[in-house]
Amino acid sequence: MKDVLAFLKKNQTRFVRELCEYVQFPSVSAQPAHRKDLAACAQWLVRHCRQIGLDAELRPTEGNPVVLARTPRTNSARKPHYVVYGHYDVQPPEPFELWKTPPFDPRVRGSSLFGRGASDNKGQHLAHLNAVEAYLKTGAELPCDLTFVIEGEEEVGSKSLAGFLEKNRGRLRCDGIVISDTGLVSKRHPTFTYGLRGIMAIEVKLFGPSRDLHSGIFGGTVENPALALCQLLARLRDKNGRITIPGFYDDVEPLTTYERKQLARLPFSESSYRRFLGVLQLFGERGYTPIEQRCARPTLEINGLTSGYQGEGSKTIIPAWASAKITMRLVPNQTPERVQQLFMRHLRKIGPPTVRLEFKPEHGGEPYVVSPQGQAAQAALRALKNAFGCEPVLMREGGSIPIVNAFKKILGADSLMLGLALPDDNAHSPNEKFDLEVFQKGMRMSAHLWRELAA
Amino acid sequence: MKDVLAFLKKNQTRFVRELCEYVQFPSVSAQPAHRKDLAACAQWLVRHCRQIGLDAELRPTEGNPVVLARTPRTNSARKPHYVVYGHYDVQPPEPFELWKTPPFDPRVRGSSLFGRGASDNKGQHLAHLNAVEAYLKTGAELPCDLTFVIEGEEEVGSKSLAGFLEKNRGRLRCDGIVISDTGLVSKRHPTFTYGLRGIMAIEVKLFGPSRDLHSGIFGGTVENPALALCQLLARLRDKNGRITIPGFYDDVEPLTTYERKQLARLPFSESSYRRFLGVLQLFGERGYTPIEQRCARPTLEINGLTSGYQGEGSKTIIPAWASAKITMRLVPNQTPERVQQLFMRHLRKIGPPTVRLEFKPEHGGEPYVVSPQGQAAQAALRALKNAFGCEPVLMREGGSIPIVNAFKKILGADSLMLGLALPDDNAHSPNEKFDLEVFQKGMRMSAHLWRELAA
Repeated sequence: MKDVLAFLKKNQTRFVRELCEYVQFPSVSAQPAHRKDLAACAQWLVRHCRQIGLDAELRPTEGNPVVLARTPRTNSARKPHYVVYGHYDVQPPEPFELWKTPPFDPRVRGSSLFGRGASDNKGQHLAHLNAVEAYLKTGAELPCDLTFVIEGEEEVGSKSLAGFLEKNRGRLRCDGIVISDTGLVSKRHPTFTYGLRGIMAIEVKLFGPSRDLHSGIFGGTVENPALALCQLLARLRDKNGRITIPGFYDDVEPLTTYERKQLARLPFSESSYRRFLGVLQLFGERGYTPIEQRCARPTLEINGLTSGYQGEGSKTIIPAWASAKITMRLVPNQTPERVQQLFMRHLRKIGPPTVRLEFKPEHGGEPYVVSPQGQAAQAALRALKNAFGCEPVLMREGGSIPIVNAFKKILGADSLMLGLALPDDNAHSPNEKFDLEVFQKGMRMSAHLWRELAA
Repeated sequence: MKDVLAFLKKNQTRFVRELCEYVQFPSVSAQPAHRKDLAACAQWLVRHCRQIGLDAELRPTEGNPVVLARTPRTNSARKPHYVVYGHYDVQPPEPFELWKTPPFDPRVRGSSLFGRGASDNKGQHLAHLNAVEAYLKTGAELPCDLTFVIEGEEEVGSKSLAGFLEKNRGRLRCDGIVISDTGLVSKRHPTFTYGLRGIMAIEVKLFGPSRDLHSGIFGGTVENPALALCQLLARLRDKNGRITIPGFYDDVEPLTTYERKQLARLPFSESSYRRFLGVLQLFGERGYTPIEQRCARPTLEINGLTSGYQGEGSKTIIPAWASAKITMRLVPNQTPERVQQLFMRHLRKIGPPTVRLEFKPEHGGEPYVVSPQGQAAQAALRALKNAFGCEPVLMREGGSIPIVNAFKKILGADSLMLGLALPDDNAHSPNEKFDLEVFQKGMRMSAHLWRELAA
């Protein structure tokens, strides 16, 4: 292990140079004009994987290819097998004018490397590749078999990934997935993300008269669908921030004392959070801290409202219809199917007889949690502690990461989320960067991780 | 009077031909391309007024000119002076493909003349001009002095009319205004419209976070402005259809027993009304008939809702703001100013502290009512009865006619609304028409009216 860590330290300059090379590819998956850049970027990655000693190949999909790279299988006893996930595609760089240096001409400023994709996600999976290189080049035995799956469509919804996993189910059978694509609370708070919220998206539409009606001539005799919608949606949340749909909380697994204690360790300032969001005051479910509210409690949000006239000035109509886009964030053990049923049943029950109710279910995603007290999680926590030299924090993400559900569903494997992106790394924003100290510590974390996982 | 009525009967064919000539002008005020047609139409009308014996002139305004035409003043004793209002501009004819015959090539089919503007409003004020012609050509003494004010901007908001009235206040000083620009319930229900609702339009906007927020990362800790808006607006109307703004009904003049009896005489079928609007069931303020609800009771309508994402599929955001366009229909003696105050005060009081509330007041208009038991109203009812040969009905309009308020405010005069447009005359729609039997009866009504008013 000493040799491995020494190798990582010694080669840091080269690692940064290689990350620069990698970031230079404008592998913007959302923009068809960059299709060739994505292919070139994937080819660079295959070559790089081969150079460090991996069996690497480019696997075509209906979209952008997947880079599949395996550590050489030795004849020794069966080792644990882990899949390391990452993505070589990046977010669009626009607006260009807000970048201090060009997004695809990476530059080191201060202790960070600036460039689109530096932290999301090129730098993060390169840290794992560097750790593996260190094992392979120093001749130290890698305690795990690893398969890297680096896709090129994460920023556009990982459309081809599930099919790829299905097709390669056999080769990818594993003991777990390692993903460094989430956040790091701070350099002094190495972070293990052990849960994600799920999601249920649905559109609700109320139909009133067969056409927009003159509000003078007819107003007063028919229901106004926009007002009916307001009255319907208003009843879905009480003044304590609780969702009032019967049965909504039935499947919610309460937070354990251990978890609440761990979440309370996360640094949080209410006043600076409030200022950051630009709100007059915070509002959430009574009885929970803001951190618990945003990652471990379910929510109901209106994402959009549409009805009638929306232009300048006024138009004196009773709109023919009104609609709301709604998403609900779910926590274990809620399921999108069940919550959707409860939601529709409740609205049908309380909806007024004066309007016709229509639902348009959109996507859904399961919530996810891996026990922070399980073996793999504990191994990850030890690796973080060793690499960063301080006690790691446990966190849940309020958002959803659909690939984690795909890994769970198709490969039956849990994901260890060990994010290396700092809150100010500007993922998806201009001036994205990756902290080079975190880069180094991430490599060390990876080096420790395989040993801890095999222990 | 016998001669006058005989003249009207004898000249009916010519009157229809002249109406055809008048309708041929595509005097579409909303479309700048028709500016010349509006001018030509106004000139035709001036010539026509002169031909029948009126002192007529074209009076320029900042917009389209006003045709001002006066009956010749005789040396006899002072007569009552009435202003007859009308408009020579018409609605756009689009969509052309829905017209059975071209909109500006008027044709008689059945008992109606089809063409854009036939009933709204060319035919209606021509009926009054024809009645005056009958007096002048037969040498019968016209019992009133009349001034016709026929404007060219009614369909685009009568922008220049108030200024014109102000400028000509002296010449237009009068005992009342006669307007035939409203509806006739049926040929067997000659209609006197004695009231209009007023209006107060306002936009309400709620501001939450300084930008749209990721509903996964932040959802649960901040107020959702769209949901807050729904909860706010939901509280403005109770389940009995009553507006819950404190003080809202304080100034509402209760309907008299006489009025309720008169309104109950109007033909009304709930099931065909429901089918016509395409609603599952009617809904309005409990304790009032649909006719009372739509013309004599105040309302609150949401005309439009806007918030967050409105495109295809879903977008997982907490919107930064949400807004609603609202109009309230007012009845005597409510005023837009007072209702606006009550509305804003109430929303400020019940608005949650989690969002910032902003109001954008739009236009307002006073409600209007002229006592149906007053002298002028009774004269109008007698004229209707004589012309149509059956008992007239009393009606209030649910909409607002801003010019009526302008006449009241600037000239201090009440308006007698004696509409000649049948419900199926397709005002503002393709295949607009004017019933020629109503045209003839309208002329007779006008002939009677001046005698009754002077009595």
